[in-house]
Amino acid sequence: MAGQNRCWVLAKRPAGIVAREHFGWQEQPVPPVKEGEFLVRNLWLSCDPTQRGLMEFDTYVPMLPLGEVMASGAAGEVIESRHPDFAKGDLVSGAFGWQDYAVSTGEGSGGRVPPQKIPPGADIPTALSLFGITGLTAYFGLLDVGRPDVGDTVLVSAAAGAVGSVVCQIAKLKGCRVVGIAGGQRKCTWLRDELGVEAIDYKGEDVQARLAGICPDGVNVFFDSAGGEILDAGLASVALHARIVICGAMSAMNDFGHRPGIRNYPFLVFQRASMRGFLIFDYLDRASEASAALAAWASEEKIKAQVDVVEGLENAPDALRRLFTGENLGKQLVKIAGR
Amino acid sequence: MAGQNRCWVLAKRPAGIVAREHFGWQEQPVPPVKEGEFLVRNLWLSCDPTQRGLMEFDTYVPMLPLGEVMASGAAGEVIESRHPDFAKGDLVSGAFGWQDYAVSTGEGSGGRVPPQKIPPGADIPTALSLFGITGLTAYFGLLDVGRPDVGDTVLVSAAAGAVGSVVCQIAKLKGCRVVGIAGGQRKCTWLRDELGVEAIDYKGEDVQARLAGICPDGVNVFFDSAGGEILDAGLASVALHARIVICGAMSAMNDFGHRPGIRNYPFLVFQRASMRGFLIFDYLDRASEASAALAAWASEEKIKAQVDVVEGLENAPDALRRLFTGENLGKQLVKIAGR
Repeated sequence: MAGQNRCWVLAKRPAGIVAREHFGWQEQPVPPVKEGEFLVRNLWLSCDPTQRGLMEFDTYVPMLPLGEVMASGAAGEVIESRHPDFAKGDLVSGAFGWQDYAVSTGEGSGGRVPPQKIPPGADIPTALSLFGITGLTAYFGLLDVGRPDVGDTVLVSAAAGAVGSVVCQIAKLKGCRVVGIAGGQRKCTWLRDELGVEAIDYKGEDVQARLAGICPDGVNVFFDSAGGEILDAGLASVALHARIVICGAMSAMNDFGHRPGIRNYPFLVFQRASMRGFLIFDYLDRASEASAALAAWASEEKIKAQVDVVEGLENAPDALRRLFTGENLGKQLVKIAGR
Repeated sequence: MAGQNRCWVLAKRPAGIVAREHFGWQEQPVPPVKEGEFLVRNLWLSCDPTQRGLMEFDTYVPMLPLGEVMASGAAGEVIESRHPDFAKGDLVSGAFGWQDYAVSTGEGSGGRVPPQKIPPGADIPTALSLFGITGLTAYFGLLDVGRPDVGDTVLVSAAAGAVGSVVCQIAKLKGCRVVGIAGGQRKCTWLRDELGVEAIDYKGEDVQARLAGICPDGVNVFFDSAGGEILDAGLASVALHARIVICGAMSAMNDFGHRPGIRNYPFLVFQRASMRGFLIFDYLDRASEASAALAAWASEEKIKAQVDVVEGLENAPDALRRLFTGENLGKQLVKIAGR
C-alpha cells in the first residue's frame, strides 16, 4: 500500500473542554496488512462523548495512552484484505480512529465494538447515526431499560443530540408524551418543529420549575445523558415507579474530578423509582432486532437521522469539541473523503 | 373508658436533629369508641427514621400538622372494640402514635400500614422488629430488590441499625460475603462478634478506600439507608451489574434542604449498575411469605432480633433522637407499659 497515513494522536490530557491543542498531527507510512487483517480507508468519523472520557481517565474503556492515534468510531471502505470475512470493497464501521487508514483484525477490543459491515449502497451518515451505535443505544436504552408504556411522559435530556433525538422519535411513535431538554432556542425550536415534541431550554429556563409546571403528574421515564443539574431536576419530577435511564453524564466529562453532585436521589425512595446505567455493548447480540425496527420506521418516514457534518480529518478536534460546547444538532460526524 | 390519655404532640418543626423541645406533653381524655372502631392501650412504640421526615416535610406520607399527636408505629392491646375483626384482648401493631390510648378504624391511611394482629403469646419487641415492618423491609429490600446470588458481596450501611442488622443476617444465610458499615467501634465489634460479618467504621475510616482495599472485585449488592457520603463511597465500588437498594437516606433527614449530594453516579454507567428506591408498602400483600421465612430462620437460630429499649412514654423524644445521634444498636423501641 503506497501513500502516507495522516492521523491525529493524543498529545496532552485535557482539563476542561477538549481542544485542538490536545492533539498532534502526524503523517506516517500506511501500516502493512498481515494475515488475518484488513486495511480500511476511513471515509467518515463519528464523534461521541465517550471519546472525551478515554482522553483523561479509565471508564468502561481504558484511558488512551499518550502518543496513540485518537480513538474514534469511523466508517470506511476495505481496500486490501487478508481476512476471510472482509473483502476489498466492503463498507465497514468500527473503532478505526482519527486517521486515513486503519488495520483491523475484525475483532473488538478494550470495550470497543467489533467492525460491522454496512450494506452496499447504504448512506454512510445514516449508517453511523440512526443505524449505528447511536440508534441501537436509543432503541435499547429507551425500550429495554426505560420500558415506556403508551401514554407515559418521557423526559429526554440532550434531546437535540445524537442519541436523544432518536429517543424522542421512538418515544413519540410508541404513543408517549415527550419532553426534550436542550440548550438554546435554536435546538428547542428544532425539537418542536421537526420532531413535534415539547422542549425546555436549560440555558434560558429553570428546568425543575418548568417540569413541575408542565408535568404535574411526574415523569414516567427519564432518558438522561447530561447528569449533574439536569439529572437532579429530573429526579425531583419522577412519577411513581419511574425509570431513569443513565446513558452518560456529559456534564461530568469535562472535569471529572469536579463533577457536580446530585441531591435529589431521595425521590427514588419516595416514588419507588429506579436509576439504571447501561452500555450498548451489552445489547450487541440483539442488534438485528433494533436494526429491523429502525429500518421499518425509517421506511415509513416515522423516524429520521439528523446529522451535523464537519469537513476534513484536519478538523476532527473541532468537531469533537462541538459536542461539549453544544453546537451540534443531531449526530456529529466528520467527512474525510469520498462518498 | 375512664382515665387520661398522656400524649406527645408535635409542637415545633425541627431544623437539625430532633429533640425534646420539638414536642409538647399533653394529657387529654381518652377518646370515645364509635361503631366500627376499637381502642388500643399502647404498650410499646417503634422508632423509625421516617418519623423525622414527617415532622418537617412531605415524603411518601404527608407532613404532620403542628399540634397533632406525634405519628409512630406502636403495639398494644385492644381494650374495647366495636369493630368486627378486632376483639378485646387482641394484641395489635399499627400507626397508633405517641400516646397511651389510640382509637383505630382498622384501616391504614396516608401511607401508613393498617393495624396487624400479633399472635397471642408473641414477644412484642420481636413482633415490632424482626417480625414487623423492619423485618419485612430487610427481607424484600434485600431479596426482591437486591437479588443477591450465592457468593455475592453484599454491602450494608447502617448495618447495626434495625433494618441493616436483619439485612446482614439474611445476606449471610443466603451464602453471601457481607460487609457492614456502622459508626463507631462498639457497633463494628458487635457486627463482627455477634453477626459474624466484616465491618467498616465510617467514623474512623475512609469508607471508599477501605472498600477498594477489601472488595477489589467490587460490591454486587449495596443495601443503603444512609445516603450522602456513604452512598457515594459505595457507588465508587460497584461491581458489574450491581444493584443498589435505596431504603432511605438518614444523612438527608436532619437537614433536607442542605442534604449532601452524590457525585459517583457515573459509575452506574461504567458498571451497568442500578439504584432503586423502595418502600415496604408495595410488598404488604406478600407479607406472609416473608413472615414464614423469618420465623423459620428464627426457630433455627439463624437470625435474631436485636432491640434497644428506652423506658417510658415520657422519654419517647429521646428515644427517637437516638436514631440520629447513632446511639441505638438494633431496633430502637420505647416500652410504655406492661408486658
